[in-house]
Amino acid sequence: MIKVKIIGATGYGGIGLIELLHQHPEAKITTLVAREDVGRRISEIYPHLEGFCDLPILDAEDPQAQASADIVVFSTPDRVGMYQAPEVIANGAKVLDFSGDFRFTTQEAYADYATRHGKDPIHASPDLLGKNAYGLAELHRAEIQAAPVVGNPGCFACSCILGLSPAAKAKLFDPMSVICDCKTGVSGAGKKLAATFHYPARYENMNAYKLAGHQHVCEVERELSLQYGQEVRITFTAHVVPLCRGIMSTLYGQMTQPMTEDEVVALYKDFYKDSPFVRVYGSKAAIGTHCVSRTNYCNLVVSVDERVNRLRIVSYIDNLMKGQAGSALQNINLMAGLPETMGLMRSGMYP
Amino acid sequence: MIKVKIIGATGYGGIGLIELLHQHPEAKITTLVAREDVGRRISEIYPHLEGFCDLPILDAEDPQAQASADIVVFSTPDRVGMYQAPEVIANGAKVLDFSGDFRFTTQEAYADYATRHGKDPIHASPDLLGKNAYGLAELHRAEIQAAPVVGNPGCFACSCILGLSPAAKAKLFDPMSVICDCKTGVSGAGKKLAATFHYPARYENMNAYKLAGHQHVCEVERELSLQYGQEVRITFTAHVVPLCRGIMSTLYGQMTQPMTEDEVVALYKDFYKDSPFVRVYGSKAAIGTHCVSRTNYCNLVVSVDERVNRLRIVSYIDNLMKGQAGSALQNINLMAGLPETMGLMRSGMYP
Amino acid sequence: MIKVKIIGATGYGGIGLIELLHQHPEAKITTLVAREDVGRRISEIYPHLEGFCDLPILDAEDPQAQASADIVVFSTPDRVGMYQAPEVIANGAKVLDFSGDFRFTTQEAYADYATRHGKDPIHASPDLLGKNAYGLAELHRAEIQAAPVVGNPGCFACSCILGLSPAAKAKLFDPMSVICDCKTGVSGAGKKLAATFHYPARYENMNAYKLAGHQHVCEVERELSLQYGQEVRITFTAHVVPLCRGIMSTLYGQMTQPMTEDEVVALYKDFYKDSPFVRVYGSKAAIGTHCVSRTNYCNLVVSVDERVNRLRIVSYIDNLMKGQAGSALQNINLMAGLPETMGLMRSGMYP
Amino acid sequence: MIKVKIIGATGYGGIGLIELLHQHPEAKITTLVAREDVGRRISEIYPHLEGFCDLPILDAEDPQAQASADIVVFSTPDRVGMYQAPEVIANGAKVLDFSGDFRFTTQEAYADYATRHGKDPIHASPDLLGKNAYGLAELHRAEIQAAPVVGNPGCFACSCILGLSPAAKAKLFDPMSVICDCKTGVSGAGKKLAATFHYPARYENMNAYKLAGHQHVCEVERELSLQYGQEVRITFTAHVVPLCRGIMSTLYGQMTQPMTEDEVVALYKDFYKDSPFVRVYGSKAAIGTHCVSRTNYCNLVVSVDERVNRLRIVSYIDNLMKGQAGSALQNINLMAGLPETMGLMRSGMYP
Repeated sequence: MIKVKIIGATGYGGIGLIELLHQHPEAKITTLVAREDVGRRISEIYPHLEGFCDLPILDAEDPQAQASADIVVFSTPDRVGMYQAPEVIANGAKVLDFSGDFRFTTQEAYADYATRHGKDPIHASPDLLGKNAYGLAELHRAEIQAAPVVGNPGCFACSCILGLSPAAKAKLFDPMSVICDCKTGVSGAGKKLAATFHYPARYENMNAYKLAGHQHVCEVERELSLQYGQEVRITFTAHVVPLCRGIMSTLYGQMTQPMTEDEVVALYKDFYKDSPFVRVYGSKAAIGTHCVSRTNYCNLVVSVDERVNRLRIVSYIDNLMKGQAGSALQNINLMAGLPETMGLMRSGMYP
Repeated sequence: MIKVKIIGATGYGGIGLIELLHQHPEAKITTLVAREDVGRRISEIYPHLEGFCDLPILDAEDPQAQASADIVVFSTPDRVGMYQAPEVIANGAKVLDFSGDFRFTTQEAYADYATRHGKDPIHASPDLLGKNAYGLAELHRAEIQAAPVVGNPGCFACSCILGLSPAAKAKLFDPMSVICDCKTGVSGAGKKLAATFHYPARYENMNAYKLAGHQHVCEVERELSLQYGQEVRITFTAHVVPLCRGIMSTLYGQMTQPMTEDEVVALYKDFYKDSPFVRVYGSKAAIGTHCVSRTNYCNLVVSVDERVNRLRIVSYIDNLMKGQAGSALQNINLMAGLPETMGLMRSGMYP
Repeated sequence: MIKVKIIGATGYGGIGLIELLHQHPEAKITTLVAREDVGRRISEIYPHLEGFCDLPILDAEDPQAQASADIVVFSTPDRVGMYQAPEVIANGAKVLDFSGDFRFTTQEAYADYATRHGKDPIHASPDLLGKNAYGLAELHRAEIQAAPVVGNPGCFACSCILGLSPAAKAKLFDPMSVICDCKTGVSGAGKKLAATFHYPARYENMNAYKLAGHQHVCEVERELSLQYGQEVRITFTAHVVPLCRGIMSTLYGQMTQPMTEDEVVALYKDFYKDSPFVRVYGSKAAIGTHCVSRTNYCNLVVSVDERVNRLRIVSYIDNLMKGQAGSALQNINLMAGLPETMGLMRSGMYP
Repeated sequence: MIKVKIIGATGYGGIGLIELLHQHPEAKITTLVAREDVGRRISEIYPHLEGFCDLPILDAEDPQAQASADIVVFSTPDRVGMYQAPEVIANGAKVLDFSGDFRFTTQEAYADYATRHGKDPIHASPDLLGKNAYGLAELHRAEIQAAPVVGNPGCFACSCILGLSPAAKAKLFDPMSVICDCKTGVSGAGKKLAATFHYPARYENMNAYKLAGHQHVCEVERELSLQYGQEVRITFTAHVVPLCRGIMSTLYGQMTQPMTEDEVVALYKDFYKDSPFVRVYGSKAAIGTHCVSRTNYCNLVVSVDERVNRLRIVSYIDNLMKGQAGSALQNINLMAGLPETMGLMRSGMYP
């Protein structure tokens, strides 16, 4: 059994992974670490876990928290995992980090990301940059299998990159013309309380936010540029809408030459023919976030506005699954040499 | 592998069972029958099932629909399964029925139920009454294992009966004093369209309904009376509130003698000590429907209003799981000689 | 024009009153005081008020905050208004308090309330007790008109008292048999952040809370006992369900003698014949919280469970209107000698 | 008093107008006509209207339905009002139509609209085309005052046109570059039942729809082209999200020359300086649909993505108010020679 330790276990990312791993045939959670609720069992805080995971929350300094593991998951904010990763790796484990710390593979790229978002531009473990992998299995499967440290993607970024990579690789669109109009459920903001996520303030409300720039833009531009072989720049708008789980990203690009919807669908299906968690549909399919809710799937709906020669992809994921814990388990499987789909083949439940 | 055929496969009960069985190690769905959508694959109608169940919907008269099965599930309205059950049994299968048809074990009890709800009081297969079992495993485990036909409980009934049976058996309350104040999510009404379940009419609304009498009352009174050894009569109020899944039943009874909350908790825990899907809590526990959502658990919160010597139990279930498909799988397991919990040991997902 | 000053203006109670008063023909807000957001205009915090109320938030010590007013509203927690009321009254104004401070008319009753809820039992302005009125106009119209200080009712209390007073006055039920099963939308908890009201934690969840005792019980028992002429004791259960506005209280009492629904409806209609904001219905009416949402109405649905001779009233209000700001304006009208309905005759909007 | 007759009174548009007009000082509803529920009082169907509007629903052929009125509102589907308008006008009344019938001012424009949406391209009252006005007061105030027949705008169209007209008039963007990414609450689909609007199917779901083309595109392109003085073509995407009321349209255009956000804000404020229902904000403002809910306001948030020189406007309205009944009353006021804002100056209620 692969042993998994989670640092920052009590956030949505941590419990998402616990929920998945208690049913996994080859991996199990062995240690939970967090800064709050130390000493309580995780199932006291989240009663639905009772009988499935009753491990105690340990302080990071607790000797028990030093127990060895095969994979150490940092479900922590930026600039936590980057300080601890080298020691974890030296102890023979691999690192999966949920923050922006290991999503970039050069100091320059990290510094650009950090600067734009008001963070210290100096990476604490620069020696690991270049050895790390960007944890989107559909694009970086082999690197994830080999890397000592993997940066799990941002949830919006995941939906946009999966939605546009086939078109970028085929250079279907003008690289300066891309617009990502993204809508997320409220769980995307995590469990931290805020006036804007108080139920009465949110239940019958929707709004755009972070209009000055969202932290996932760098990831999207980097990955699309890699596919395109040329710089891609996007306009990105984040919106929050009153549901819990789900991202719907509507992605637009000015096409460089006319193509029909059917041609684009075929191109997309071919691109993802070895990716079991991506499904491609034409514009007539009745797809919504409920089709991917509580699963690791990304559903892509392709359409072409022929009047103005514009490509439009609608990308649907569950932000806490394919956008977080599901991708994390997919990465853990790859990092541990297990089949990518292990523990993830579930349909979800409707309604 | 146990072969399961579902009649009425496209309702919430049917797809709930499909979602559970595609992950079950010892049982599988082999045939789907319904009146609508004949000829379409179930995964065309419910895209989340794609790759998990792609069986076609068959007409009941279709020769393929006659294929043998070990268990035939009738996820159909009242007075459908009762006509077909004898033939199914004659062919060597067992029957699990989701309607009121096999929830009563005498013609008199059925007639009383049917009359109160404006249905024909004559049961179509009276020979089966008495051989059938009421499908609440926590109370009728042995009978379910043995019976050729099992009536799956009503969702409200399930929550009330589990909530009050230990107290009934111990005669803790005056049998004429019971009040069941039940709140259900909207999925309890099934997928049939109605003005009252149109999203704009429902999203910020709650109301009591069927104040003249709800069809689950008979079941609750019968089961509680059985436990009590004396007639129990209840006042039952159904309310619908704007969530999708979940029943919260607040159950009141005038106590015949003073008892503390701790004493009642102990009595309840003892009653359910061999029932893995019932969890008992004292009044300080922070339990809500989200703790049981998408699982087969029933969570019971015990309290005593000592000022007026009144027992109060709050019973939480997922109406589509413990209240329907989950109990159904629990019954299928028992009917097939498998462990009761097989395919059901999952934590749910939060949030 | 009646001048109204609000202390604690930025909570839901405060803005509810601002929303009502900007349309009132004879009263207007002249001063807003709060502890947070001092110096900002109220419409910066709540942009929907822009152009309707752009007053600044003043600190309580600010000289401008001392400006005279006809009515001073304390939309503050317990034990704030009771200290300041005497000075306000000495300055010639009347006081309307939203907390528990002036809901009781004797030191003993206040001490009982405060003790049960862990508060200091000594009232800070005992001289005002006995001169104050309980601000439920339907029962205390004349006292409210005359009193220098009025205690606005609790939201749950309002729904229960209106629902049971006619039956209490007619002694229809055994005074020890009453159960109040109350369900509230989330706005009832106010704007204070809490993990349990974080959108993802609440959106698909419902639960009972404060099972050990809710602070509104004292009010309900006092008012029902007054009507009955004998002590009435209730079992009270508070539940929170995922909508924003609305209380649905299902109220049960064991009837002392058989009565039909029609007889009870007639008795209720007679009781409320001079109360324009109470509507009485029989059990066949299709009433829900949406019928009273954003209005000052209380809709009462009467039914009798004749099998066990039990009265059942379902009482619907908007917790922020009839349960708070609406009743407040009704009281302000009475205190100012204006027609009770002024500024309140609106239908609400559907859906 | 202006007398208003509503044809199609029981839909959301009809009751929205009833809710507004019962509080209007100079206009009142005198006649209600519909095809369903004939003979019932409107307040039987919508109990919140009890005491505010208790008029009976009349059949169109009923002699009482022929009573004269000053304004006849057709809250009906396409191709109803166009047949009846000439007679209404001949009788001295003015017509306000909620469908697409009078949104176009030439036969060619109507035919283009109708053809694209599978309707008969022949207008039934071609003589009225050219005399009619497009009912967006902010752009066509004088024409609305003068016209015998006004076509109330589509809800999406209203949000997009208000959002982009100032930029179109100033030719800020490339006319082929516009993208309208629109999100609507569920009430936008009206009260007609559909599987996709059944509460359980909708509550935790969002999706794009009508990807092949939405019926509001023609209106948006026509109005923007008028402002621009040159053909504007848009890519339009409609999405439905799980709230009841609200449209949020995120509007993008490639700028023809660099401008700062502040410059664009100034230009927008100037454009709308005489339009009391449009508010303009910079990108730092915390605006959401809740700021306009249940009001006639349109809030516009301006931002510029300077990295790619792209204009982005987020336009917020209540689809049933500014998007329907609110604009309708604004038009009725203008058509009747009353102040545009009469009966509409309300803040809404929060939360």
